[in-house]
Amino acid sequence: MQASLALKPALDAISEAVDARFDRLLPVPPDSRAPLYEAMRYTVLGGGKRMRPLLVVAACDLFHVDRERAMRVALAIEAVHCYSLVHDDLPCMDDDDLRRGKPTVHKAFDEAIAVLTGDSLFAVAFELLADGATHDDPFVRSELVMELARASGPAGMAGGQMMDLAATDAGFDLATTTRLQQLKTGALIAFCLEAGAIMGKASPGVRLKLRGYARDLGLAFQIADDLLDVEGDPHAAGKALRKDGEQGKSTFVSLLGVERARSQAEMLIDQAIHHLQGFGPEADLLRGIARFAIERDR
Amino acid sequence: MQASLALKPALDAISEAVDARFDRLLPVPPDSRAPLYEAMRYTVLGGGKRMRPLLVVAACDLFHVDRERAMRVALAIEAVHCYSLVHDDLPCMDDDDLRRGKPTVHKAFDEAIAVLTGDSLFAVAFELLADGATHDDPFVRSELVMELARASGPAGMAGGQMMDLAATDAGFDLATTTRLQQLKTGALIAFCLEAGAIMGKASPGVRLKLRGYARDLGLAFQIADDLLDVEGDPHAAGKALRKDGEQGKSTFVSLLGVERARSQAEMLIDQAIHHLQGFGPEADLLRGIARFAIERDR
Repeated sequence: MQASLALKPALDAISEAVDARFDRLLPVPPDSRAPLYEAMRYTVLGGGKRMRPLLVVAACDLFHVDRERAMRVALAIEAVHCYSLVHDDLPCMDDDDLRRGKPTVHKAFDEAIAVLTGDSLFAVAFELLADGATHDDPFVRSELVMELARASGPAGMAGGQMMDLAATDAGFDLATTTRLQQLKTGALIAFCLEAGAIMGKASPGVRLKLRGYARDLGLAFQIADDLLDVEGDPHAAGKALRKDGEQGKSTFVSLLGVERARSQAEMLIDQAIHHLQGFGPEADLLRGIARFAIERDR
Repeated sequence: MQASLALKPALDAISEAVDARFDRLLPVPPDSRAPLYEAMRYTVLGGGKRMRPLLVVAACDLFHVDRERAMRVALAIEAVHCYSLVHDDLPCMDDDDLRRGKPTVHKAFDEAIAVLTGDSLFAVAFELLADGATHDDPFVRSELVMELARASGPAGMAGGQMMDLAATDAGFDLATTTRLQQLKTGALIAFCLEAGAIMGKASPGVRLKLRGYARDLGLAFQIADDLLDVEGDPHAAGKALRKDGEQGKSTFVSLLGVERARSQAEMLIDQAIHHLQGFGPEADLLRGIARFAIERDR
């Protein structure tokens, strides 16, 4: 519980910073596109734990990257994360009515606007990264774009969502479930760390360590999510829970059981923190995030 | 009719080149993501006039850009165009069953796969542009990314689609209809020319001429589409026609009438070609495309 408490100020600060920048980035235009911008704002403002932005900033801090520039990358990744939730919640996908304690976008607006909101946030993410304000070196910018495109496309997040659709029909084994989660949520979490390394022009050795951290953290994060789905309070979570079981989807909990799943997550977090050996106190935030990952919402 | 005939070999050649590259780019993986890749291939292979790829190549040819590199940009734009059609055809959007004479993606596969197919093709487009194989200069790559993100996002194509949704409820006047089309289809067509200018590091003066050409061509293209919607043969067009009128949407034809719409399109094409004054025979393909724009499908 202590780690969560220690992380709270950092999470509060990043949430405020993310909100302020999205607010400036997405003013509602005085024309018939207004509902689209209102839906984009509804999606990205005032919700979520902002775990990914915090990871980006924590990774960028290792290399003393200018905070304002790091925030542009953080916003891009949060935009992609939010877009994926909007499309994932659609009736033809997970068909969820509630997200972060509010009606989902297709409920608060309509389905067509929800599709366009996701599409628009995806475009905005790439615009943020490619802009000169993100980094002076255009090589850094195009590397960020390429890695985000890979992490979010069919070889990453979208591919994982496809596997997730297939999972409803066929129970997956542990290896396939791990692969599914590495694509669906792991790839974008890995990009948060990779983005820090790209922005900071990290050495190959340092990059490798951060990749190890990201891989273990991403999986632990997903196991914690599966535990939350089984044990959590839907009211506190702000979304529907216990859907995986109803849909017959394999999860780490259905495959391992609650106890083994929890000890697996704890082991992964130990491993993640171990990858940060060699870093000093500048990596304390990353260590704190790792501990928080398996303690949140409990 | 003569211009169309003259353009046919160029369109056939570009179609073949686009198909061959998409085929190599998107092999179906041996896992449960297979349906997603099959749907992506179904979307981008063997259909459409490939007008946008031809525009990219024609613009790149003005600056003697390497053909293989120009084709990467052409593929990126065609991927975005195709993705927008897949999302546009969804039941919650235009609800179309037929596209290019084939069942739409959500009919041939399902709605969830259609959503992910669009999302995936969008990601692939940015991956294509940001990759070092597209241009040695990373500044060129990040400029391409930024312009494509703008052209396809809420200030471009997605914004135009939002206006189009609003248009069903409220009849728009000529100025608003023009603005809608400039965003919905004009922005991406403009990017085809802009991309050539970026790849070729064109002077500001040359860029301005190409922008003028693109603006006039884009509008003429849309007017021709509206004429086709009223006068065309659905069988030849390979999609449902006469939907705009049924939905009470304002089009250039409903606002101007058939005769004035046609003469407006012809005037725009004359203007578009006029912008190319100062270019020699190297711009003949762009001139041919302009003439073809108002002669296609008749």
